Amino acid sequence: MKQNESLRRDVAAIRTQAPLVHNITNFVVMNNTANALLAVGASPVMAHAVEEVEEMVRLAGALVVNVGTLSPEWVCGMERAMHTAREVGVPIVYDPVGAGATAYRNVTNERLLNVAAPTIIRGNGSEIQAVAAGFGLGSTARTKGVDSTAGSEAAVAAACALSERLGAVVVVSGPTDYIVSGNTVRENSYGTPLMTRVTGMGCTATAVCGAFAAVNADAAEAAANAMTLMGRCGEQAALAANGPGSFQVAFLDALYRFEA
Amino acid sequence: MKQNESLRRDVAAIRTQAPLVHNITNFVVMNNTANALLAVGASPVMAHAVEEVEEMVRLAGALVVNVGTLSPEWVCGMERAMHTAREVGVPIVYDPVGAGATAYRNVTNERLLNVAAPTIIRGNGSEIQAVAAGFGLGSTARTKGVDSTAGSEAAVAAACALSERLGAVVVVSGPTDYIVSGNTVRENSYGTPLMTRVTGMGCTATAVCGAFAAVNADAAEAAANAMTLMGRCGEQAALAANGPGSFQVAFLDALYRFEA
Amino acid sequence: MKQNESLRRDVAAIRTQAPLVHNITNFVVMNNTANALLAVGASPVMAHAVEEVEEMVRLAGALVVNVGTLSPEWVCGMERAMHTAREVGVPIVYDPVGAGATAYRNVTNERLLNVAAPTIIRGNGSEIQAVAAGFGLGSTARTKGVDSTAGSEAAVAAACALSERLGAVVVVSGPTDYIVSGNTVRENSYGTPLMTRVTGMGCTATAVCGAFAAVNADAAEAAANAMTLMGRCGEQAALAANGPGSFQVAFLDALYRFEA
Repeated sequence: MKQNESLRRDVAAIRTQAPLVHNITNFVVMNNTANALLAVGASPVMAHAVEEVEEMVRLAGALVVNVGTLSPEWVCGMERAMHTAREVGVPIVYDPVGAGATAYRNVTNERLLNVAAPTIIRGNGSEIQAVAAGFGLGSTARTKGVDSTAGSEAAVAAACALSERLGAVVVVSGPTDYIVSGNTVRENSYGTPLMTRVTGMGCTATAVCGAFAAVNADAAEAAANAMTLMGRCGEQAALAANGPGSFQVAFLDALYRFEA
Repeated sequence: MKQNESLRRDVAAIRTQAPLVHNITNFVVMNNTANALLAVGASPVMAHAVEEVEEMVRLAGALVVNVGTLSPEWVCGMERAMHTAREVGVPIVYDPVGAGATAYRNVTNERLLNVAAPTIIRGNGSEIQAVAAGFGLGSTARTKGVDSTAGSEAAVAAACALSERLGAVVVVSGPTDYIVSGNTVRENSYGTPLMTRVTGMGCTATAVCGAFAAVNADAAEAAANAMTLMGRCGEQAALAANGPGSFQVAFLDALYRFEA
Repeated sequence: MKQNESLRRDVAAIRTQAPLVHNITNFVVMNNTANALLAVGASPVMAHAVEEVEEMVRLAGALVVNVGTLSPEWVCGMERAMHTAREVGVPIVYDPVGAGATAYRNVTNERLLNVAAPTIIRGNGSEIQAVAAGFGLGSTARTKGVDSTAGSEAAVAAACALSERLGAVVVVSGPTDYIVSGNTVRENSYGTPLMTRVTGMGCTATAVCGAFAAVNADAAEAAANAMTLMGRCGEQAALAANGPGSFQVAFLDALYRFEA
C-alpha cells in the first residue's frame, strides 16, 4: 500500500532525526502535544516570548502555531515566529482553534495568515469555513465533487478555496478527514468517536503534522500521513479503553509503539 | 431516591445539550477540567483575553472563574466576563483558590465578587472562610446547627453568611461537602481521600458545577448533583486505582460511563 | 544501606510535614509537577504574579523556579520570589530549561542566578554547561576524575565549577545523574530510557528536589535522594508500562506507593 509505505518512511525519519518542533500553542494542550510529539519520536519545545521566538524557530524543523488561548502578547510572538519561519524556510503548521467564535479570533487569524502563509492549516469544518470567510471565500466557492456528507461539503469547498488562495495544504478534520491541496482532496476515515471526548486531540493532530512536515517536504503527503497515524493510533487505543481517561494513556502508548 | 433522579436528569441534559462552559481558570488544571467537562458531556472552552471574553460568555451556558494562578491581565478578563455573564443571565461559578494565602488573592476575590455575585462559589473550608472574612463575615456568624466536625463548623457558618450576603450557593468541599443556600445546608459524604492527592480535583468540581448550572436553574440542586457525581465517580475510580496516577485515569472513565 | 536510610527518612518527613513547595514553573509541566509533589506527599502551590510571590514564598518550605516558558512578566515574579527566598532562608531549586538555546534564556539565567544563588540547580548536561558558560566557566574547568561518559565529562566539570562559584549543589541529570557539591560528586544510575519520552520528567525531578530540600538541610543529600526516588520510581513504573502513556500513570502511582 503506497500510503502505508510513505507513512512508515516518515515515522522512521522522525524517529531517526528527532526533529525539533517549535510550538506556540494554547495552555490547555501544551502537555498533551509535547507528549504526543515525544511519543512519535520528535523533540518538542514550547517558547512564546517575542524576545526569543526568532532564535528558537531557526533551530526548529517545524513551527506549530495554535491560537486556542490567545492574548496580545502571544499573538506578537506568533507573528514574529511565523515571519521568521517563512523567511528561513521552516514549515509552518497553523491551527485556528475556535475560529468564528469571536471577532478577536477572526482578526487574529487574518493578521497571522497575512504575515506568512502556512504550509499546513488544520481545523474542524466550521473553523476552516470561518478562516476562509475572513478571506472572502467560502459559500460561493465551488465544491470539488468530493463525496462528502452534507455538513462537510461546504467545509471542503472552503478548504479548496483557502488552499488555492494561500498555497497551503488545508486539513478539515472530522469523522472523515479531508486533506486538501488546491484541487486535490484526499480522504481519510480512520479514528474513533472517543477522540472527541479528549481535549486537544485536534491540537495534537496539528502538532503531529508539524513533526511530519519537518521530515517530508511534500506537505500534502506529510499531512495525510500525520492524520492517518492519529486515526490508526486512535483506533488502536479505543480497543483497550474504558473511556476517555484510559484512551489518552493508550493513545500515547500506541504512538510510541507504532510499527514503522 | 429523589437526589438520584435529579442527578440522572441533569447528567442526561448535559449529554443531550452539551452546554458550552466558558472557563477562565488556572494553568495547572486547564487540561484536567477540560477533560472532565468533556467526559461528563459538556463542551469546554478556555478563553481569557479581555479582547474576547464578552463575546465568548454570550455563547456559553455557564462561566467558570478560577483564580488559582492569577495576574492582573487575567483578572481584567475575569472581571469583564463576570460583568457580562451577570448582564446576560449566564450562571457564574467561582473558585477562590488559595483565598487567604496572600493579600493579592483576597483583594482580587473582593473585587471580582463585587462585580457580579456568582451563582455558585466552591472552595475548601479555609478558602470560604477567607472569602467571607473579606466581606466582614465569618467568626461572628451564627452556626446553623450543622452536624459538622470541629473544623467544618466555622466554615459552614461562614458559608451561610456568605450565601445570604451574595445570594449565592456556597459549596464547602471536604470529606463531607456542604452545599449552602441561605439557611439550607445539604450534606454529601461521597468521595475518597485519593482525590486530595490529585491536583485540581477541587477545580474540576467547580467546573463540573458549571456544567450542571448550565442545565439546571436550581443552583443548589445543580451544585449538589455536581458534588455527588464527583464523589461517586471518585469512589468508583478508587476501586480500580493503585495510586493517584491510575486514579485520574479511572476517574475520567467513570465520569464518562456514569449511568444517567 | 546509608543512602536508603536517608532516602526513607526524607520521604517520611515529606509525608509527615507536607511541606508547601512554591513553584514558578513552565506551562507545559505545571500539572505533572503538581501531581508528582502531591504523590510524594508534599503540598504544591503555583503562583507567579509579582503582586503575590513575596508573600507566598514566605509560607513555603521551598521555592522552585523553572524558566521553561519564560516571558518578561514571569521573570519579574521569579526575581522577586528568589530575592525573598534568599532573604528569609527558604531553599531555592532552579531549573535552567533550554539554557543555551536562545540569548534570552542565557541572559535570564544570569540575571536570576545573580539575584540569589540557588540551593540546588538541576539540568541536563548541555543546560548546565550553558549556565556555567554564562559565568565564564566551563571548558577550561578541570574535570574532577569522574568516571563519566565522553558526553558527561565536560558537563560534570562545568557543574563543579558552577557549584564552587555559586555555593550551590548542581545536578546534571542523564542516564547517570551527577550530584555535584564543590569537589564532591555523587553518581546515581537509576532510571529508564522511557523517562526521556515523557515531557517534563526533568522538571518533575527539579520540583521533587524542592520537596526534599524543604525537609533536609543537607542540600547534596536532599538532591541525591530526590534523584534516587525519581530513578527508582521510574524503574518501577517501566515494569508495568507499554509506552510513555502508561509509564506516566505508573510513575505517579510508584511515587505514592514508595515504601519509606
